[in-house]
Amino acid sequence: MRRVAVLGSTGLVGQRFMAMLWKHPWFEPVPVTLSPEKVGRRYGQAVDWVIDWAMPDGLGELALEAFGLSTLMELGVDFVISALPSSVATEVEPALAKEGFAVVSNASSMRLEPDIPLINPEVNASHIDLLKEQARRGWRGFIVKVPNCTTSILTLTLKPIQDVFGIELVAVTSMQAISGAGYHGLPAVKIAGNVIPYIKGEEDKVREETKKILGTLVEGRVRKAGFSVMASTNRVPVLDGHTLSVFVKTVRPAEPEDIATALREFPNNEIVGMNLPTAPRVPVKVLDAVDRPQPRLDVGAGNGMTVTVGRVRRDPDTGWVKYVALGHNTVRGAAGNAVLVSELLLRKGLI
Amino acid sequence: MRRVAVLGSTGLVGQRFMAMLWKHPWFEPVPVTLSPEKVGRRYGQAVDWVIDWAMPDGLGELALEAFGLSTLMELGVDFVISALPSSVATEVEPALAKEGFAVVSNASSMRLEPDIPLINPEVNASHIDLLKEQARRGWRGFIVKVPNCTTSILTLTLKPIQDVFGIELVAVTSMQAISGAGYHGLPAVKIAGNVIPYIKGEEDKVREETKKILGTLVEGRVRKAGFSVMASTNRVPVLDGHTLSVFVKTVRPAEPEDIATALREFPNNEIVGMNLPTAPRVPVKVLDAVDRPQPRLDVGAGNGMTVTVGRVRRDPDTGWVKYVALGHNTVRGAAGNAVLVSELLLRKGLI
Amino acid sequence: MRRVAVLGSTGLVGQRFMAMLWKHPWFEPVPVTLSPEKVGRRYGQAVDWVIDWAMPDGLGELALEAFGLSTLMELGVDFVISALPSSVATEVEPALAKEGFAVVSNASSMRLEPDIPLINPEVNASHIDLLKEQARRGWRGFIVKVPNCTTSILTLTLKPIQDVFGIELVAVTSMQAISGAGYHGLPAVKIAGNVIPYIKGEEDKVREETKKILGTLVEGRVRKAGFSVMASTNRVPVLDGHTLSVFVKTVRPAEPEDIATALREFPNNEIVGMNLPTAPRVPVKVLDAVDRPQPRLDVGAGNGMTVTVGRVRRDPDTGWVKYVALGHNTVRGAAGNAVLVSELLLRKGLI
Amino acid sequence: MRRVAVLGSTGLVGQRFMAMLWKHPWFEPVPVTLSPEKVGRRYGQAVDWVIDWAMPDGLGELALEAFGLSTLMELGVDFVISALPSSVATEVEPALAKEGFAVVSNASSMRLEPDIPLINPEVNASHIDLLKEQARRGWRGFIVKVPNCTTSILTLTLKPIQDVFGIELVAVTSMQAISGAGYHGLPAVKIAGNVIPYIKGEEDKVREETKKILGTLVEGRVRKAGFSVMASTNRVPVLDGHTLSVFVKTVRPAEPEDIATALREFPNNEIVGMNLPTAPRVPVKVLDAVDRPQPRLDVGAGNGMTVTVGRVRRDPDTGWVKYVALGHNTVRGAAGNAVLVSELLLRKGLI
Repeated sequence: MRRVAVLGSTGLVGQRFMAMLWKHPWFEPVPVTLSPEKVGRRYGQAVDWVIDWAMPDGLGELALEAFGLSTLMELGVDFVISALPSSVATEVEPALAKEGFAVVSNASSMRLEPDIPLINPEVNASHIDLLKEQARRGWRGFIVKVPNCTTSILTLTLKPIQDVFGIELVAVTSMQAISGAGYHGLPAVKIAGNVIPYIKGEEDKVREETKKILGTLVEGRVRKAGFSVMASTNRVPVLDGHTLSVFVKTVRPAEPEDIATALREFPNNEIVGMNLPTAPRVPVKVLDAVDRPQPRLDVGAGNGMTVTVGRVRRDPDTGWVKYVALGHNTVRGAAGNAVLVSELLLRKGLI
Repeated sequence: MRRVAVLGSTGLVGQRFMAMLWKHPWFEPVPVTLSPEKVGRRYGQAVDWVIDWAMPDGLGELALEAFGLSTLMELGVDFVISALPSSVATEVEPALAKEGFAVVSNASSMRLEPDIPLINPEVNASHIDLLKEQARRGWRGFIVKVPNCTTSILTLTLKPIQDVFGIELVAVTSMQAISGAGYHGLPAVKIAGNVIPYIKGEEDKVREETKKILGTLVEGRVRKAGFSVMASTNRVPVLDGHTLSVFVKTVRPAEPEDIATALREFPNNEIVGMNLPTAPRVPVKVLDAVDRPQPRLDVGAGNGMTVTVGRVRRDPDTGWVKYVALGHNTVRGAAGNAVLVSELLLRKGLI
Repeated sequence: MRRVAVLGSTGLVGQRFMAMLWKHPWFEPVPVTLSPEKVGRRYGQAVDWVIDWAMPDGLGELALEAFGLSTLMELGVDFVISALPSSVATEVEPALAKEGFAVVSNASSMRLEPDIPLINPEVNASHIDLLKEQARRGWRGFIVKVPNCTTSILTLTLKPIQDVFGIELVAVTSMQAISGAGYHGLPAVKIAGNVIPYIKGEEDKVREETKKILGTLVEGRVRKAGFSVMASTNRVPVLDGHTLSVFVKTVRPAEPEDIATALREFPNNEIVGMNLPTAPRVPVKVLDAVDRPQPRLDVGAGNGMTVTVGRVRRDPDTGWVKYVALGHNTVRGAAGNAVLVSELLLRKGLI
Repeated sequence: MRRVAVLGSTGLVGQRFMAMLWKHPWFEPVPVTLSPEKVGRRYGQAVDWVIDWAMPDGLGELALEAFGLSTLMELGVDFVISALPSSVATEVEPALAKEGFAVVSNASSMRLEPDIPLINPEVNASHIDLLKEQARRGWRGFIVKVPNCTTSILTLTLKPIQDVFGIELVAVTSMQAISGAGYHGLPAVKIAGNVIPYIKGEEDKVREETKKILGTLVEGRVRKAGFSVMASTNRVPVLDGHTLSVFVKTVRPAEPEDIATALREFPNNEIVGMNLPTAPRVPVKVLDAVDRPQPRLDVGAGNGMTVTVGRVRRDPDTGWVKYVALGHNTVRGAAGNAVLVSELLLRKGLI
């Protein structure tokens, strides 16, 4: 059992973290807050629990710990999971790494720095080797990042296509759930019965992170994937689950059935055989029904860790492949991915 | 004043038709129903009015007329507007045309037949000349079609780009409103808090209709536009207003500001100067705000006849243009377009 | 194991029935359809599964059976569960009872007839003795009814209050979920972002059924409860879960804590100790948080069989008790209640 | 023309104020902000306009003024309208009154103080005489309050019933729109597809304010109405429009038609004949349709100033009257009411 401090434990993503780590076979979570007024309160009293999973019995009784290097050391924490806002993470996470903590972070800061592994385990677990490069920073610990929510979902579906057919160009339009904005991120009056065709910084994240994740680790550096990802990201009035409309121009011609087979079989799944507790049995599930996936029906697949894909088809004029992908934005796209990365780190003896 | 029979006058699109034609300066509507049990009832009693425009005073007092050739003749109807379901329209509309009625139709049947004009007035009013070709059918009247809702909105934004920069390829993902499915088309339990990534037949309509509308009329035939339109169409929980995420590969490089200018100026607007009562002052309105257009805020632009565009930008890797377009699906995308076509026909002396 | 035919198995309530009966320890379900075009198809192919529970593995493989007396007999069915619309149930259910079938029905027809038990098990399981009276009808089988959805939820909360404090008058306003209207019952365009303050027949059902359920069985007749129930029923844009705002004038003065205690302890729970598989451990759960229950957070309590209550308070001017109750309308309020009644019947040796 | 400073002009209610006062025949609005970073910016740039009325042309060009006594004097303001949060209003408003400003306020603070008129114009315009009592405070100006949103709607419907039949007891359950929580008041993740059965302080406001408004002004004091109002207040996922389910025990027996007539005729409407520009032609509109009013269809009645009522019926057991009332919470329930009160003050020569 490893003790893990969860920074930002009462937020929307923090709630998923606590639910997934509570009774985890390998980890024991310690909820940490950066809000002084919450320190010392029972987790169940301090949190406004709004996620669809019921709060597990007993979790609410934990006491919220204050953030601080000395506190973390006194708590006997083995590593740190960060659900901090990016602005805070920018300062806090390197400081922790410097002091010797392993940090698995969901924050967007530093994701593109060359020596920071950006990991979606089934896709690029091997990039974890980038950690060796962080020694140059003089850190005794390290930082690993998980991708942006949309990128997490997208890359799981692009990887098998890349491996089997090659990819020349991708255009993706997202229909993202409101939970992706966090607890306070989106006033109800803005999104009720509406679409907001803008999510700050999101399109750049999808473009850049996808190329890094699907790139190749060569001599301590990631050589980015050679194709472009054009993104248009939108908020829709759905609670959980990002739906992606994906257009892919493949290098080699691909029939829809072949694409579906590649997605189902997921060759080169980089964590096969590792028996990580949070790894879904099926990372990508392909549905045959003509009108699926749908967030309300499919977001819970694989306890939120499976990406569902449907409507795999071919544009009759151009031969581009089109499909729809759906994933749970705060599980597969955030907390779940970070827990899976933590499991990977433990398996590799890094925590 | 021309008397116009509105077929399917109590449906969702029919309600828009009646509201737009009531007190119209040129037309006087006669509501017609194909449901025997509604015949003779007051319009206001027989309709379940659900659109956001309040029912105009007096409209509710009209009596619903039965459908039938002899009835239409007795009613002294000058032409017919059809909001019939496609399956019914397939038989009814040609029969009416044969008997001498001009039919302006929103139904999807026959839209792609070579001698049927498919008109989005600002874009291709000149295609109305195709009507001459219908003489060969032995009809004394004729049929004009308006495009599919999504295509109506899309083509208004593609036309200026095509004219100024040329288009090589288009990828569009739609987020379509529930009113597009009609009154009975979508059970509440299916779409509440959900996205349904499938609308039957819609992607083919967008692909084929766009190429016809943006084609060139040459010697009695439409030479289709030479580019492809890859579409992915989705239903989202929004009441009115289809939002389109559009990616365009232009022939000549285009800066976002140039695209915006072309959309604002709309060169080659084919109805400029005709003073058609329903024509919006601005067919395409470009918004500067980073998070617009939004259906709830912008769907009413130009009384529902203006398409709003925002987020005109350029993909940094590929140079493709990206933008978001929004239009009112049952006004610009259906009833409003058909009324505008009717006005065009009257101006041209065809009704 | 008893074989049970589920009539109306593909509807919204039918889906709940099939999910609850599949792998049930005592029952084995046979899905029956009254739609000729569905007969013989696989259940998974014929149903448009829209409920939040994932379809259990294997269920989709069952073949849909045709309805008919001879078919039911050939199928070796032990009893029948009916999720038929009331209009159909009126004829079908008595015919089945006449032929010797035990019928547990969710349809509203006949609920108020004096010899038909209307059962909410924890509240009035003893009313099952009314079945003896049905012999006079010349039936070889019998009919048992479960209450209207709102009434099921309401009576679970009124029973402990009635027993401990007495009730003089009740005023209840419901905020009912869209799933209560069935699969086709409510077009999306009507309820999106809206409240519909009318549900046909519902207020009378709540008023009459509550008095029957909370009445006393005396010499083969139910003596109705002596208080009135004033109801106002509304549809709100919530998927599952009816929320009730309840005002109760008690006979004896009641402090909120005493009411809460009575609800928690549920004295005179009529099925305590029977170990019915579907009976929730806690029929009424009282929440302390000031803003609960909420349908999205609490509808799943006790797998949908527990009613949650919150905001138990006292009007400072009048002493009336006020509280909010929430229950799952298609589980506790329909299918779950009927399964629980079936279990009760088996325990009593009646099926 | 009077110049009026609007405090809190960029909030949700502030947006309604600015839209209603812009081009008002009697008033000219000056937008004021208490946020230092907004001072000097164009209104259209500083506001996040989210209400359903389009921003009137020209309004966006106004410059936002800083708050301060000296600033208000320099601006030549004749009176002040306050859309401030209650916590801020508590200090600011009395200070303004002391300095000689007339303050018409939507804030909840001080509404129940004996010398503060709480005015819903059609109901109790005469209570404006309470202003004389404020002289004792040593103020050169004065404060007038408008009621809580729900109370504004409720009292318009209770007044005619009180006048014609007398009222003994009221029970009301509200289904309140999300715009009632203000721009930042309600995170989207909390209310999506949900009901929240709690609005802080609301039930007490409805109870106390109703009795004050429907009370009688006698010798400089309001003698409160002699009946109780039991309230249960809920938030539902509707954008605009509070729907109230009302149960009334009248003193004299009342048939539904008589209640409807009283509501339609509104005897003792206290502003009849005053020709106030914002007064609706019909303060209470009674609808016959069985399923109305509905917020989406009826919230705009009388430009948001008319309360619509439907389903007027009688409980068969008790004789209590039941009905449903709907009003626009930020127009009739806030900004519109305050503008109407301002017009009343001008007519009475008080500003």
